[in-house]
Amino acid sequence: MAREFELIRWIRERTRIQGADSLQGLVRLGIGDDCAILDSPPDGRGWLMTTDMLMDGRHFRLAEGVHAPELVGRKAMAVNVSDIAAMAGTPVAALVSVALPREGFDAVARGLTRGMRQEADRFGIVLAGGDTNLWNGPLVLNVTLIGLEPSSGAILRSGAKPGDVIAVSGPLGGSLPSGRDMRPQPRVAEAQELLNALGPDLHAMIDLSDGLGGDIRHILTESGGLGARLRATAIPVHEDVRNHFAGEVASDDAAALRHALSDGEDFELCFCVAPKAARRLPRWATQIGTVTDSGQLTVEWGDGRETLWLTGGFDHFRSFGA
Amino acid sequence: MAREFELIRWIRERTRIQGADSLQGLVRLGIGDDCAILDSPPDGRGWLMTTDMLMDGRHFRLAEGVHAPELVGRKAMAVNVSDIAAMAGTPVAALVSVALPREGFDAVARGLTRGMRQEADRFGIVLAGGDTNLWNGPLVLNVTLIGLEPSSGAILRSGAKPGDVIAVSGPLGGSLPSGRDMRPQPRVAEAQELLNALGPDLHAMIDLSDGLGGDIRHILTESGGLGARLRATAIPVHEDVRNHFAGEVASDDAAALRHALSDGEDFELCFCVAPKAARRLPRWATQIGTVTDSGQLTVEWGDGRETLWLTGGFDHFRSFGA
Repeated sequence: MAREFELIRWIRERTRIQGADSLQGLVRLGIGDDCAILDSPPDGRGWLMTTDMLMDGRHFRLAEGVHAPELVGRKAMAVNVSDIAAMAGTPVAALVSVALPREGFDAVARGLTRGMRQEADRFGIVLAGGDTNLWNGPLVLNVTLIGLEPSSGAILRSGAKPGDVIAVSGPLGGSLPSGRDMRPQPRVAEAQELLNALGPDLHAMIDLSDGLGGDIRHILTESGGLGARLRATAIPVHEDVRNHFAGEVASDDAAALRHALSDGEDFELCFCVAPKAARRLPRWATQIGTVTDSGQLTVEWGDGRETLWLTGGFDHFRSFGA
Repeated sequence: MAREFELIRWIRERTRIQGADSLQGLVRLGIGDDCAILDSPPDGRGWLMTTDMLMDGRHFRLAEGVHAPELVGRKAMAVNVSDIAAMAGTPVAALVSVALPREGFDAVARGLTRGMRQEADRFGIVLAGGDTNLWNGPLVLNVTLIGLEPSSGAILRSGAKPGDVIAVSGPLGGSLPSGRDMRPQPRVAEAQELLNALGPDLHAMIDLSDGLGGDIRHILTESGGLGARLRATAIPVHEDVRNHFAGEVASDDAAALRHALSDGEDFELCFCVAPKAARRLPRWATQIGTVTDSGQLTVEWGDGRETLWLTGGFDHFRSFGA
């Protein structure tokens, strides 16, 4: 126990709360008590709250020596920042829980803290509290992130409407083999740029963690059981797909798209926009399809062929049409 | 992944948000989006935030078959409620992350959810979000709990003053062998009763999770390096100590006290009160000593002997005095 308190102290020394003039000033009390205290946001805005757990062997590979603790810490913070970005919010305060493998816990804890701190500093996040534990199991890290709602209200998954243009913030696929999955670039600034450019015409948004094909379903379901028609040739495929699946892509013309739709851990934004506002989309946004009232997710191949995406991924695709 | 979404749906169906007339109405958006949304508390009160991670083999024993998932879920929620109680707050919303062992995950998830829900319902807590994962490791459960600050302000660890009366809310020790550690009774109502009875004379409070001897140090340190003198005979020893350590207690007159000071997982409150207000303490509160400006933690044995408690526990005790 005593050693754990030293760890908390070590983390605490590396945690700054800025002056009351910044958002960080809303964190009235940080590490060192039974709870952290968060003051009310200005303008009656709400607090956004999200939580993500990362486990060794599943979301990173520490014990195998593949990923350094710094990288793990950065990712744990970044995936939560990405959730705040998906609502066009601003991250403010983090609570961090960790189960540290007893063997070598000190170096791991310091590395994790450095990585989390680095990512937190990029976004002005206060490390406001946490829970440190030692055990004989693999590293488990949980971050809860609190963010400030935009003054015009959070962008939900549930606001999509039939006819909306669907767009993404960047290319998709190949994240895991390239290691890009360990270096998410949360699109906080991009989300706020979208909101500024589109205002109430930005209807719905999600961050892509499980793959476009799965995540877009959350928007469609939460928006009342809508459908979508995606244009296969419009979906931007990340160069990691060609770099890491060259053979597969060469022999199968749908392979690249399959990766873009299913690989996951892209941490780009996917958003639905009123059609009249599509011309106001930033240059970095790529339009990939349209929301429909069909209740079905289909992919158009441009040759008149259409694929009905039933569930999960391409393995379950059923082609129909011409 | 699909199975995980089913789990989230299952949890979601069992999660109710009550009307806007209750505190739960402050949870504007619950499970089903990238973040939950919490509205501003009334009266400019702050939000209290705490997080605790529980691991199999450390905080409970699921794989060994000692503890049922329901019990694990209850404990994970209750230990966080205890942190909110320690600030005299009211718990409102929880975010739950879980790493489920792949083998038999479904039954475990349902049991955990039932247990968490049961405890959450006792305190009117909304399950507002979470993150469910499967892996090949042992069960890890993390709860982040958000609570409403009392209108007169949270009771911190840092408010103790020399001369304050130190008191506890119940008997201590023997929690682990009796299994009481798996059934914490968070003292939310007791903390609010204290605040109502004492007002600004309730100077500092903490919940006892690591043992009185260690936890009281947090109050003394956070209050600017104060000391305390505890009266050995005044410290209430839980009957679990005599029931589970009968031989040890019979042969060693300090043994019972050692357990009361060091066993941990009591989840009682320890609080410091202005001396003039001590007569307003509720009947269930037991006065156990006094805050001093000595910077040292000592235990008086009533026979003129005094023990200086250096660190950690009785193994490090050094007797001095008569």
